Amino acid sequence: MPESTLTLSALTPILEASRNATLMLATATTEQKNGALSAVADALRKNVDQVIDANRLDLRNGAAEGLGEGLLDRLTLDSGRIGALADAVLAIVALADPVGEVVRGRSLPNGVKISQVRVPFGVVGAIYEARPNVTVDIAALALKSGNAVVLRGGSAAENTNRVLVDLIQGALASVGLPAESVQTIDPFGREGATGLMQARGFVDVLVPRGSASLINTVVTQSTVPVIETGAGVVHIFLDESATEQWAIDIVHNSKVQRPSVCNALETLLVHENAAQRLLPGVLGKLASAGVVIHADERARAIYPDAVEATDLDWQTEYMSLDVAVRVVASLDEAIDHIRQYSTKHTESIITNDIGNAERFLNEVDSAAVMVNASTRFTDGGEFGFGAEVGISTQKLHARGPMGLGELTSTKWIVRGTGQVRA
Amino acid sequence: MPESTLTLSALTPILEASRNATLMLATATTEQKNGALSAVADALRKNVDQVIDANRLDLRNGAAEGLGEGLLDRLTLDSGRIGALADAVLAIVALADPVGEVVRGRSLPNGVKISQVRVPFGVVGAIYEARPNVTVDIAALALKSGNAVVLRGGSAAENTNRVLVDLIQGALASVGLPAESVQTIDPFGREGATGLMQARGFVDVLVPRGSASLINTVVTQSTVPVIETGAGVVHIFLDESATEQWAIDIVHNSKVQRPSVCNALETLLVHENAAQRLLPGVLGKLASAGVVIHADERARAIYPDAVEATDLDWQTEYMSLDVAVRVVASLDEAIDHIRQYSTKHTESIITNDIGNAERFLNEVDSAAVMVNASTRFTDGGEFGFGAEVGISTQKLHARGPMGLGELTSTKWIVRGTGQVRA
Repeated sequence: MPESTLTLSALTPILEASRNATLMLATATTEQKNGALSAVADALRKNVDQVIDANRLDLRNGAAEGLGEGLLDRLTLDSGRIGALADAVLAIVALADPVGEVVRGRSLPNGVKISQVRVPFGVVGAIYEARPNVTVDIAALALKSGNAVVLRGGSAAENTNRVLVDLIQGALASVGLPAESVQTIDPFGREGATGLMQARGFVDVLVPRGSASLINTVVTQSTVPVIETGAGVVHIFLDESATEQWAIDIVHNSKVQRPSVCNALETLLVHENAAQRLLPGVLGKLASAGVVIHADERARAIYPDAVEATDLDWQTEYMSLDVAVRVVASLDEAIDHIRQYSTKHTESIITNDIGNAERFLNEVDSAAVMVNASTRFTDGGEFGFGAEVGISTQKLHARGPMGLGELTSTKWIVRGTGQVRA
Repeated sequence: MPESTLTLSALTPILEASRNATLMLATATTEQKNGALSAVADALRKNVDQVIDANRLDLRNGAAEGLGEGLLDRLTLDSGRIGALADAVLAIVALADPVGEVVRGRSLPNGVKISQVRVPFGVVGAIYEARPNVTVDIAALALKSGNAVVLRGGSAAENTNRVLVDLIQGALASVGLPAESVQTIDPFGREGATGLMQARGFVDVLVPRGSASLINTVVTQSTVPVIETGAGVVHIFLDESATEQWAIDIVHNSKVQRPSVCNALETLLVHENAAQRLLPGVLGKLASAGVVIHADERARAIYPDAVEATDLDWQTEYMSLDVAVRVVASLDEAIDHIRQYSTKHTESIITNDIGNAERFLNEVDSAAVMVNASTRFTDGGEFGFGAEVGISTQKLHARGPMGLGELTSTKWIVRGTGQVRA
């Protein structure tokens, strides 16, 4: 890999500065870190115009390059959004510091005391798309958990990100923490991302956040440990005994409240003995909200205002006002369908049968499994984490919404008075 | 990668059988899993001769191929070692089942109950060298934690491993658990290992255990998430205020008790103000145990019976009766040395200065950091884990000795009564 080696060596001074910053960050007090975060929030509020000017430049370039409306919207920062970003940073100030938390411990028979304590990872890398709010969110979470962070945002947000990182670095320096705690490698372009993926030994963990293809590239090319945040082909199963009103409300909320996010419903499964009772009300409420129903033959027999679903529908994360609907013969068939098509993000069963609820919770292998609740609850904010780095759909280290604790590792502290091993 | 794709497809039936086995394993009761493990211990005891016959064949082949004495020793199983293996399996029976443990949980303001619960990974892959005891240890830990396991041992142990896996599979079947819960891919040779590293989606986590080059190969080539178990360039720092007897005992125990393992001492640092007081006793006791002292100039001035240390010594994991010794000017210089050369396994400070002890614990970034204790304590058995899969020197998911809990992931269980997100 001559190219990536070249890029990695170009990144080396930046990565070494991050490593040096960790020495001070790892032992910074909660007070110091909160002081830095408050200074970041202040800087954002005081420099709204500067951020907006840079953002306008990005938006102009993006429009000229033909970025779609959705992408341009996600790229946009206005004064309201900048205020919300500052509020999010202050919300992170209010959270407990994960560093130093004793996870478990004991006294060994020989009197040696061992305890497992949370520590920062060290250097966290993040590769994401042109959403400048992610720059601030991840930098703030990384700082609070004592990590230095190296950011590679989408190049379409390069000007905005540069101003945001400048403001964050100024805030850090103002409270005596190293400015290099937060750095961007946007100027290195795509090759910077490639270098970051090869920065084993410099970067302790890499978090990709964005499209499935971005995540897949990072997962397959990185030699740095990666935490995968994934897509959500999210299912709800309406069991035979489901309460109709719960089914109607939960399906509507899961699909319609914010269809473009990963915890939104994509496929609705319904027990054949409940389809006639439940589908008209459930699908009628969806349709009245503008949802296009993609249904199998049996569901269409009950609800004819649906387009025909194909095999592709079961695999699709629409992220739009579309839903796939299938009638199944049993809980087993529902679980089999989920096992085949789920991306292991979130699945919910609506039921009044305790045995079926427990089977669903035990046998469905997803980051979040639910009974009688909206899939939209799989969220760091809802879970009380204050904010989230992303939602992990893998099983190593973190699963589900990733908050401050998920940005830490542990170390074992061993205290003796001269003991040796027998 | 046409070759590895080919190998992966050859492995597919085995990997699919593992995946199917997880369905029963994940919901198996502790009683069932303990029954299977007891049956494994019984089978080992009742078939000692069969295991020894297969092992003799491997030993003969190994000798013919010129395997070194150390490797042949690690390859050998005799009736005593087979009995110890059975005992280790029964020790795992006695441990608490990690599956189902509630890690944390809360009631959300709207009444929704969330809890984070330990679940098996699913399929665990292990790539290791020609040590047949590892076959039984990892299989037993994986089973107890509800995981299916795919084993790739060193080809020099192929005959022994085949018999061991046959016995384990028979024991599983005898209690009604799927025999495919434990499978070997040894017959596929090196290409099997390559396939396993590419088995993303089939294998949930891959644990390499063995030499640095084996681990490096798996870490850099695997697209499956890897938990790295690493080498130990382990340090002890004798601070200015160290108690002489503690220094003598702890250094001797750390170096001599079992020099070939990863938690054994490799480099001794000593404060310049304590070198004259401590080195004669500490190094004299090491030398009387046959340890070769590789010392820097200042240490040799105090202890002339030492060979000259070079820069290479600071980087070396001897795994033998050798130790590197260096005089440093301060705690800072000791921490700097450790930062530069440590493999982040275990480091210990011998001191009576509370401030220095706390600085060492906070600032040394290793899986285990100790005060006044032997580095040999970094061990699953010593920590009360009963057994260990290996000792992780990385920061993701597991750090330090890996027991049953480290072979689990978590899932979020969400229980509602019709709640939707506002």
